[in-house]
Amino acid sequence: MSAAVLYMSISLDGFIAGPNERLDNGLGDGGSRLHEWALPGANADGKDIVRPAGVNGQVFDEMMSTGAVLAGRGTFEPAGGWGGDHHDGVPIFILTRRDPNDLRQWPRVTYVSDITTAMTQAKEAAGDKNVLVHGAGIAQVALAARALDEMELHVIPVLFGQGRRLFEGLAAEQLEMERTRILQGEGGVTHMHYRIKR
Amino acid sequence: MSAAVLYMSISLDGFIAGPNERLDNGLGDGGSRLHEWALPGANADGKDIVRPAGVNGQVFDEMMSTGAVLAGRGTFEPAGGWGGDHHDGVPIFILTRRDPNDLRQWPRVTYVSDITTAMTQAKEAAGDKNVLVHGAGIAQVALAARALDEMELHVIPVLFGQGRRLFEGLAAEQLEMERTRILQGEGGVTHMHYRIKR
Repeated sequence: MSAAVLYMSISLDGFIAGPNERLDNGLGDGGSRLHEWALPGANADGKDIVRPAGVNGQVFDEMMSTGAVLAGRGTFEPAGGWGGDHHDGVPIFILTRRDPNDLRQWPRVTYVSDITTAMTQAKEAAGDKNVLVHGAGIAQVALAARALDEMELHVIPVLFGQGRRLFEGLAAEQLEMERTRILQGEGGVTHMHYRIKR
Repeated sequence: MSAAVLYMSISLDGFIAGPNERLDNGLGDGGSRLHEWALPGANADGKDIVRPAGVNGQVFDEMMSTGAVLAGRGTFEPAGGWGGDHHDGVPIFILTRRDPNDLRQWPRVTYVSDITTAMTQAKEAAGDKNVLVHGAGIAQVALAARALDEMELHVIPVLFGQGRRLFEGLAAEQLEMERTRILQGEGGVTHMHYRIKR
């Protein structure tokens, strides 16, 4: 059974991007600090990405073995739509309430306007594999709609002080989780996996 | 050498109290969920506190083997000043900018008006032991003043959605930490220990 899993790099104080986010500054000021663990071989342009080693590599591989990607337009557009292929050519589902006609139409990308339909389609497309849920906006929407099954937080040993938070604007309702795995990655990164109880 | 260590129970989404905090609702609505791990034998009145078992007990014992307590008035007053004795009769230092004359004068409690002096006095009083930094307000003040050495976050497997955050109102400045220990406690509680780099 396919599970919808959020993979998210986050500072210890809960930020997933630095301040002053813009289309041309998608991670905010200093936000790339959160992704160093996953891109150890990237140069300044983000080219020549090399798979990380060790525990970080294990988690990276899991993320990249998902069978579909679900993201919001706010993640998709600054990333240039990943050129229409996030990894291994798996189907990509983009949640957008706006008309997607101005977006480039890649063959593997489907635009969906509501989270329930998007998640259903993504899980069907993923088959036996999991769905990679990608981005803070879609995470908040999926959490609110109770459509998220699991989350893997890559907790980076840094305090940001300011920026964009992963957990913001949710209702005051306690949501219990099951801690399913804690991995101590290289560089002080702690990978924390939780299943959301229903 | 004495270290100033923040011990804090926190939801996975960063809250240390639920919404609607008041003097008579010090943890906010539902906030007691965050402290169940430390008070497994407490009744509804918080009496008959029994030390937790296992890994949680180990961390609890460390917290209770500190040689001094430093807290803010916002933690001290709702707790009734711990009756003038937080644990084992160790000296207590309370940061308050207001005149402390309206506070009950317990022999082991010292009122100090600035964080640097308070921390210096607390470390001197603790001798070879650590200083227990207690409360979100004092944590924020100590972080901003670069007076905090370490933090032990007890991460509870629950999302609160709303409430009071531990990390709030800090400057946009990246503060690097060293991950020194991760312990998987009972009940899904993860104890994360970090040293703040200087």
